Amino acid sequence: MLTLYYAKGSSALASHILLEEVGATYAVHEVPIQKGAHKEASFLAINPKMRVPALQTPEGVITENPAILNYVAATHPEAGMLPDTAFERAQADALNAYLCATMHVAFAHKLRGARWADDENALQNMAAKVPSNLADCAALLEEHYIVGPWAMGETYTTCDAYLALVPQWLSKGGVDIAKYPKLKAHRDASLRRPATQAVMAVHGI
Amino acid sequence: MLTLYYAKGSSALASHILLEEVGATYAVHEVPIQKGAHKEASFLAINPKMRVPALQTPEGVITENPAILNYVAATHPEAGMLPDTAFERAQADALNAYLCATMHVAFAHKLRGARWADDENALQNMAAKVPSNLADCAALLEEHYIVGPWAMGETYTTCDAYLALVPQWLSKGGVDIAKYPKLKAHRDASLRRPATQAVMAVHGI
Repeated sequence: MLTLYYAKGSSALASHILLEEVGATYAVHEVPIQKGAHKEASFLAINPKMRVPALQTPEGVITENPAILNYVAATHPEAGMLPDTAFERAQADALNAYLCATMHVAFAHKLRGARWADDENALQNMAAKVPSNLADCAALLEEHYIVGPWAMGETYTTCDAYLALVPQWLSKGGVDIAKYPKLKAHRDASLRRPATQAVMAVHGI
Repeated sequence: MLTLYYAKGSSALASHILLEEVGATYAVHEVPIQKGAHKEASFLAINPKMRVPALQTPEGVITENPAILNYVAATHPEAGMLPDTAFERAQADALNAYLCATMHVAFAHKLRGARWADDENALQNMAAKVPSNLADCAALLEEHYIVGPWAMGETYTTCDAYLALVPQWLSKGGVDIAKYPKLKAHRDASLRRPATQAVMAVHGI
């Protein structure tokens, strides 16, 4: 049995979508971050990094979206969401790493700047740069990393579940997704998928 | 034929070490970032993200350490550096994602703060927080994510090549690795490996 620890409005949305898309049997456990639940001992035992998503599996806990996405895809091969070749898997890994380490980090400087600075003016300065950084990320994705209709082409893969966060980041960061036709088309196509719709509803999106 | 685009003093060290550790046939191409070579058209055609490492393969370019590490390990199975099971691979993916998106990002706020803020006081404030953030990362790795002697236990995997950056980040960030016995033992064991030694020499370490 799998249990996904998630919070509404968090990046756990990506792992949650893939679990539903592959037809996994799983439970969910909400971690109300706004109430500090991610800092409680019961959750530290799940993920000492104090972050969601975390996926409890029969073998132990997996953290970090790129790892959970690959695990869910690999353990549900019938869903066909892990690319076939080492090169194609690397392209998916690279896009997932970019979303995790560059675009999510760019977005996090809006509300989570206290991770990297203490001074109030510094936090404001970091937040002010978020829209242009997110716009740069969106332009890069649009130009280079969305084959279309899905990230890797005709087949929906792990990346597409992760890309479901992009419209959230752009919207909250004050960037109009309509300027990026491929990203907008990807969002619209994602929202037509029943599994994605079901998870979005759980997250209040 | 593989060609690794790298810069001395960059995180390309991780991918470079794994290429050497698996006995890959590869060429290297230095990108002198201090001279702005990563912004030149010839390199933008390799990686529009303007970052190293980038690995040219017969099928195309792979970017991002987590992706290159998995690709190099998967295409050199005789080296045995990709864990066997989906869960173990996810543990490796999770550690690589943490190094990429949390610890490297924490370090980058020292010298690359201009990615996230423009104001000089903000940059100074971000840099001032780097030592404590790196110390937190080191403590987390020490307590939870290094089984020993290698990250995943008895077998050297992709994570261990990535972990070769940790002593660099701690040293440049003003954190004494001696406070973290497992990390120090990991560094010392890594430096006894001929392949790692050879790559360190190329990077001037």
